[in-house]
Amino acid sequence: MLIASFAAQGEDASQAQAADADLFKSAFRHHPAGVAVVTADAGKGPVGLTATSVISISAQPPVLAFSTSELSSSAPTILEAETVVVHMIDRERLNLAVLCATSGIDRFADTALWDRLDTGETVFTSAPVWIRGRVIRRFPVGGSTLIVVEALEIGGSDFGGTSSPLVYHDRTWHQLSDSSALDQ
Amino acid sequence: MLIASFAAQGEDASQAQAADADLFKSAFRHHPAGVAVVTADAGKGPVGLTATSVISISAQPPVLAFSTSELSSSAPTILEAETVVVHMIDRERLNLAVLCATSGIDRFADTALWDRLDTGETVFTSAPVWIRGRVIRRFPVGGSTLIVVEALEIGGSDFGGTSSPLVYHDRTWHQLSDSSALDQ
Repeated sequence: MLIASFAAQGEDASQAQAADADLFKSAFRHHPAGVAVVTADAGKGPVGLTATSVISISAQPPVLAFSTSELSSSAPTILEAETVVVHMIDRERLNLAVLCATSGIDRFADTALWDRLDTGETVFTSAPVWIRGRVIRRFPVGGSTLIVVEALEIGGSDFGGTSSPLVYHDRTWHQLSDSSALDQ
Repeated sequence: MLIASFAAQGEDASQAQAADADLFKSAFRHHPAGVAVVTADAGKGPVGLTATSVISISAQPPVLAFSTSELSSSAPTILEAETVVVHMIDRERLNLAVLCATSGIDRFADTALWDRLDTGETVFTSAPVWIRGRVIRRFPVGGSTLIVVEALEIGGSDFGGTSSPLVYHDRTWHQLSDSSALDQ
């Protein structure tokens, strides 16, 4: 079933009109994602952003990417920062993802949750894995920006991997477990 | 616990050495992902690639990104193509993800699985949602490339969203369901 075609007959790709924004959002409701919290501090205090758009690009060199919307209160700082910390979030640390997705609160009010690295960045110390990295590319698209980060340092509280993976899908959090695994 | 720091004291970020590749891979084993199949045809026949790196960057304009490694047999065609089709893959269509992740086979041998759009691209017709798009940016990093795609057309066999989401995590497929959902 074809839902919508916005490319008029005879147009070549470079002239074709973009697909509808609402349809595009609906399409991504079919696409689950892992959960991360990105922190940054460009000199005016730390910010934290819950992101479901973190992907690995390359292991050698170690480079990842994520996107942020200007609608996020953290975006101006994240766009200005030279370095960021990307925390992988598991079931046990869902509180961090909720904290950094909640508007109108001081996400760093509980000083027991975070610390500063020797290099100055803010880290949520309970995160199972975190990656400190340097922003090497920013690619603005509409009101969003794709940010490409080279990893400089990797740490975490549970690197061995015994924690329960957390997934975000269509506005709902899910936990992966043996019972969600498929035999294939 | 700090696992490894490769930034010597006193270095600034621009001089810091990159993190270890194996550690970086281990870190991403803590990061589940949705599953997609990317098809492309640069004039020498279709290729299909299973990707766990598809993210939305912006809905207005509708733009997504994914990464591909040169180790993939599909990579040369995907890097050359002007347009691609990104299929969201659910539990019921796990066969497509397995097909396009299996080496040494003709992924298009079963002609019942796919069709051509009026614009020429190859589509696996059972995919619940697919997005045809134009490559607007390629960003090479080591042996991988981040590919940025503007969506032109959206279709699918199950757009309403009654299908079961599929997740890939640490070399295992998982299915999301009511029983994996968290109350939070």
